[in-house]
Amino acid sequence: MRVRNKPWAKDRILEYPQYVVSDPENWKGRWQQRFKQEQPIHIEVGTGKGQFITEMAKANPDINYIGIEIEMSVLVVALDKLIAEELPNLQLLHADGRDLTDYFEKGEISLLYLNFSDPWPKTKHAKRRLTYKTFLATFEKILPDNGEIHFKTDNQGLFEYSLGSFSQYGMIIKQVWLDLHTSSYEGNIMTEYEEKFSSRGQRIYRVEAYFPK
Amino acid sequence: MRVRNKPWAKDRILEYPQYVVSDPENWKGRWQQRFKQEQPIHIEVGTGKGQFITEMAKANPDINYIGIEIEMSVLVVALDKLIAEELPNLQLLHADGRDLTDYFEKGEISLLYLNFSDPWPKTKHAKRRLTYKTFLATFEKILPDNGEIHFKTDNQGLFEYSLGSFSQYGMIIKQVWLDLHTSSYEGNIMTEYEEKFSSRGQRIYRVEAYFPK
Ligand SMILES: C[S@@+](CC[C@H](N)C(=O)[O-])C[C@H]1O[C@@H](n2cnc3c(N)ncnc32)[C@H](O)[C@@H]1O
Ligand SMILES: C[S@@+](CC[C@H](N)C(=O)[O-])C[C@H]1O[C@@H](n2cnc3c(N)ncnc32)[C@H](O)[C@@H]1O
Repeated sequence: MRVRNKPWAKDRILEYPQYVVSDPENWKGRWQQRFKQEQPIHIEVGTGKGQFITEMAKANPDINYIGIEIEMSVLVVALDKLIAEELPNLQLLHADGRDLTDYFEKGEISLLYLNFSDPWPKTKHAKRRLTYKTFLATFEKILPDNGEIHFKTDNQGLFEYSLGSFSQYGMIIKQVWLDLHTSSYEGNIMTEYEEKFSSRGQRIYRVEAYFPK
Repeated sequence: MRVRNKPWAKDRILEYPQYVVSDPENWKGRWQQRFKQEQPIHIEVGTGKGQFITEMAKANPDINYIGIEIEMSVLVVALDKLIAEELPNLQLLHADGRDLTDYFEKGEISLLYLNFSDPWPKTKHAKRRLTYKTFLATFEKILPDNGEIHFKTDNQGLFEYSLGSFSQYGMIIKQVWLDLHTSSYEGNIMTEYEEKFSSRGQRIYRVEAYFPK
């Protein structure tokens, strides 16, 4: 996500340690303590400006959410939403998705969302895609047996690639939507990118897949 | 495929036993004898009027093809194409795809095509879809280890279903095309249905998947 550099973002994030975790290795195995209630934790990797995770947290008070984002300059926008809403079941984490095993125990996360992940269309950049096998191996290690990834994108090439990558990794494809917004799928919560691309007439693709025992 | 009933189709088919096999159980394990050369055999299940299989046979003289169709009234149209072309590497078979283990040994078929299979959109008819698990179990038994199915369709619902069905059966998805005709895929040979639906602006979906060892 291209955003203006925001040199003040770091300071602002450090002002709200109750909302944004900056020392995630210290919470490994005890993330439940950061929430008001002990209940399943779902994460989004690459949460951007946080519209999806904030709306999900509001719609599902019986789930705890963590929005994970590598770029401070966008995470700070998600932080503003959380400050405004004061949601007891949402935390933000400034981190790189590739390091998640340093921060979470096996099974500590019940479900993982990827939304409109950067497509990295060149084949030589395939390793950077969040659905590349090394990322899947990381995600598998923090999810329980049969743990699921729910992935949405407008990007045809990334979706084609990801279906193959999931399957070749050993994941099972549970369900596929090739045009989410005209489907019977209920309760969809849109991300910033989803609003932008669907308003331009782009189809939205979605898949649910799991790591079998 | 809706076609006029053709009471004469059966007689015409019986007139060309060198092209259309009507006693397939007698050829089990020795299909190579029906071809000029011994080389890998690829089949299409639901071959319809035979445009795909005829063109494939012309384009790939080093492969033997068998077009399998349950409806005599369409198979007879495929037969007319074969009579006109006299292809030494193409045979037709009047049979139901669900019975293929009665006609072929394990590994006798190297690759299986499904093109524009009947979608059976109602959930209660899912069992009739050629990508339903009972059909996949049959196909697995005639293909070698790592044997592949190549499937094309314009039908979004059937394609969504089939990706899940392949994966849940235990097949691995090798590659997916969500818009074949705008992709870089080379050498595509169109079926009758493909010409019809793509000329109406429908996307064509394609997947290659295999049964792992
Ligand atoms: C295209 S944006 C989509 C944002 C949001 N999910 C949406 O749908 O509107 C992708 C986001 O993923 C973040 N990202 C990319 N790689 C990441 C990584 N390895 N770990 C965490 N976040 C990452 C980017 O910084 C960017 O904000
Ligand atoms: C929609 S048509 C497509 C024909 C052709 N493949 C094409 O793409 O133009 C599907 C064909 O599959 C045949 N079919 C359906 N079920 C079958 C089965 N169990 N075994 C063999 N053929 C079958 C139908 O009779 C019909 O001709």
